[in-house]
Amino acid sequence: MNDPVGPLPASWLGELKALLGPGGYLDAAADRAPFETDFRALYHGDTPLVALPDSTARVAELVRWCAAHRVAIVPQGGNTSYCGGATPRPGGRELVLSLRRMHRIRALDPAGDAMTAEAGCVLAGLQEAAAAAGRLLPLSLGSEGSCTLGGVISTNAGGTAVLRYGMMRALVLGLEVVLPDGRVLDQLTALAKDNTGYDLKQLFIGAEGTLGVVTAACLRLHPRPQSTVTAFAAVPDPAAALALLARLRGAAGHALSTFELLPRVALELVLRHVPGTREPLAGVQPWYVLVEFGLHEPEAAARERVEATLAAAIAAGEISDVVLAATLAQRDALWRLREEIPFAQRREGVSLKHDIAVAVQRVPEFIAAGAAAIASLVPGARLVTYGHLGDGSLHFNVSAGAGDDGASLRAAENTVRQAVHGLVARCRGSISAEHGIGQLKVAELERYEDPVALAVMRDLKRALDPLGIMNPGKVLAS
Amino acid sequence: MNDPVGPLPASWLGELKALLGPGGYLDAAADRAPFETDFRALYHGDTPLVALPDSTARVAELVRWCAAHRVAIVPQGGNTSYCGGATPRPGGRELVLSLRRMHRIRALDPAGDAMTAEAGCVLAGLQEAAAAAGRLLPLSLGSEGSCTLGGVISTNAGGTAVLRYGMMRALVLGLEVVLPDGRVLDQLTALAKDNTGYDLKQLFIGAEGTLGVVTAACLRLHPRPQSTVTAFAAVPDPAAALALLARLRGAAGHALSTFELLPRVALELVLRHVPGTREPLAGVQPWYVLVEFGLHEPEAAARERVEATLAAAIAAGEISDVVLAATLAQRDALWRLREEIPFAQRREGVSLKHDIAVAVQRVPEFIAAGAAAIASLVPGARLVTYGHLGDGSLHFNVSAGAGDDGASLRAAENTVRQAVHGLVARCRGSISAEHGIGQLKVAELERYEDPVALAVMRDLKRALDPLGIMNPGKVLAS
Repeated sequence: MNDPVGPLPASWLGELKALLGPGGYLDAAADRAPFETDFRALYHGDTPLVALPDSTARVAELVRWCAAHRVAIVPQGGNTSYCGGATPRPGGRELVLSLRRMHRIRALDPAGDAMTAEAGCVLAGLQEAAAAAGRLLPLSLGSEGSCTLGGVISTNAGGTAVLRYGMMRALVLGLEVVLPDGRVLDQLTALAKDNTGYDLKQLFIGAEGTLGVVTAACLRLHPRPQSTVTAFAAVPDPAAALALLARLRGAAGHALSTFELLPRVALELVLRHVPGTREPLAGVQPWYVLVEFGLHEPEAAARERVEATLAAAIAAGEISDVVLAATLAQRDALWRLREEIPFAQRREGVSLKHDIAVAVQRVPEFIAAGAAAIASLVPGARLVTYGHLGDGSLHFNVSAGAGDDGASLRAAENTVRQAVHGLVARCRGSISAEHGIGQLKVAELERYEDPVALAVMRDLKRALDPLGIMNPGKVLAS
Repeated sequence: MNDPVGPLPASWLGELKALLGPGGYLDAAADRAPFETDFRALYHGDTPLVALPDSTARVAELVRWCAAHRVAIVPQGGNTSYCGGATPRPGGRELVLSLRRMHRIRALDPAGDAMTAEAGCVLAGLQEAAAAAGRLLPLSLGSEGSCTLGGVISTNAGGTAVLRYGMMRALVLGLEVVLPDGRVLDQLTALAKDNTGYDLKQLFIGAEGTLGVVTAACLRLHPRPQSTVTAFAAVPDPAAALALLARLRGAAGHALSTFELLPRVALELVLRHVPGTREPLAGVQPWYVLVEFGLHEPEAAARERVEATLAAAIAAGEISDVVLAATLAQRDALWRLREEIPFAQRREGVSLKHDIAVAVQRVPEFIAAGAAAIASLVPGARLVTYGHLGDGSLHFNVSAGAGDDGASLRAAENTVRQAVHGLVARCRGSISAEHGIGQLKVAELERYEDPVALAVMRDLKRALDPLGIMNPGKVLAS
């Protein structure tokens, strides 16, 4: 007899172990522990067993068993969610389904610009495989060394090249999904055009494992640019950065692949906490942008064109100073100034994070209004807002004042979040631009999402997962 | 009392007219007729009334009324479907809902690369509005002078710039949809990044009006390339065309926006039937490609780079002869050779059409196998296959032999279709790359689609349209 609040019956665990086979699960507490907590150690849950199937057929068998026994499943990839999306809830009744052992590249077709890989492949490995074949897998984000393909698909990941290549959704040609009843939906094709009925793969991209388990995908690869030009520029303010963005897009079109904004305070945190970093420009400037171009022309010509455009931006007052990377090492050094901000902010102490987006043109107004709200709610706190200006997507973070132990900031967490998300709602922006909902923002989604949209989301969840066993309590309240 | 097979009760028509108001409907037979037949006059149905609402609120009111009375709705835009997707069925019980009066551009934000427009806007008008604002709406297809925004969204239209800009799906930032119960789903935002729950707009893109009525959309605009370079080249065979495609993508990346393949026979049909066209190259060549580049550099430099790449292709034997357009008029003349093929083929007499796609690398093998099948099934018939080689998408058409009245070809229609679609299925290709399912391919979808996928499509249809009133009998059998 299965007690709906107690642990799973021992006989069930025995069935699961037999189903998964030797090497196909972890059940010792110490082995389970890393799967029961997210990488930032903010969420803690319990699972009686971590399933580690190594094939789609085994995943399907497991899900069928779970459906028959009404046992919930929490799919997990690299466990890098910022929202607790892959962490089981407390209670010990949810199985973690780790896709880590499904890490094969099934097919790589450079001529056809396509690669088929399993959900457990680490993103960086896929980038390398594409590069070795002379192609580009453009998704690029901080956790690429540990996040997995299933995770970036299930969260529709973004990152620093969205301006040019789109979100993860734009890179998925085909998908293989185990549905909540164990059937396998095989849409693992490499077709650029296919209008045969509803495009079902779209449902599972960004669904955070609540509608099925992504087991493999066929990815769209891109030609590798012949030359890369990277620049770090000081700009007077976010409005000037926007004018610069328009100029660069006008001049270079989609050769502009990255346009990141950061304030002086973010640069200072990096310089303070990250060894080996140094001021990229002379003097103190209020705002900076990191821009990158991928051009299909020889290096010298590419640099010359970018330099001419940047010179015009200086003449127009959009840029006050700029440096171009002359070597790969210099490029890496400029990128570190942007990529190490999250690390530096953690080292600096307590911070509150908001992952928001507004229409690109409204970013300056949003930053100004947000800064004013923060200043009045938590005097002395530092706004460290940075991110993908080219996509209207900002990490709207707040650090405690220098020397402050952060207690008052922590106490104001809900007030600040409501103020920030309220501003987002007034701009018709997004309260989760990149990181999804997970368990962190379930209540926020209920609060800010249009009730019609929420109702349709629930209809979809019910239609695909009527038993509610797929990652329950994530995205939608269960 | 409503007889489920007879005409709608007169009192209901009265209620509908009152609801729609003066100017909001057409009920005279002669006025209804153009809405009851598709533009090729292949499908014929009956509607008691053509609703012509001019606002989303009115559409919502109409749909609520239809849901309450279980009256079916057939959304219609420019009525350019190739598959009968917008034509009511016989019986006089399905309302045509024409979106033509909803043709306002609600907002145009060139700096933000976004435009919000209503479903009844004609595509060419939107292209012009974007161009006037210095931006590019890249969707481009033969019917752009009459097809509407709602239609190209509901069919996820493709066309000649997909290689560079993607299908219509990639151009939709936000959507406004009237759901089958009359609720309005307002997701009309211009956010490049938004991961707040399921991305509902994806459901309605390509759903052919079976899940709701698209009433407006926010579109993603692109920077206009500084220079356009258009070339028409002779190639020895489709395999050489593929090698050329790889070369051009390697050299130009996504500056290559168009890569169209056509055989000699297609060119000959155009030269015969379209006044003012002439041979673009000396001599008779077996295959041709039309290629276009949109470059962000000055005209002279752009041409020079393209010429150098084409010279290398000639040296490699991928091209035997090539001409570059030197003026806009020459560009238009080259494009006509491609765009007038459907017209010329109609003028030539009976033809069978197949809208298929396979992985790009398999196109040569597919053409060879398809040609062999045609030759054995309908000796003397001419294979006129052309299309978007860069996307693996072909119009795999067959014309009757010269001088043949086409009777035997017509008699072989089903056999030929089965042979072609059977080949597609063996390649895991698509039996509808661009034009959707409509009513034409409902049985073909049932036959070739994976049963699991079909079942999920039915689940979605039931979840969103439990009464089955939205465009019944289209996409899925009702």
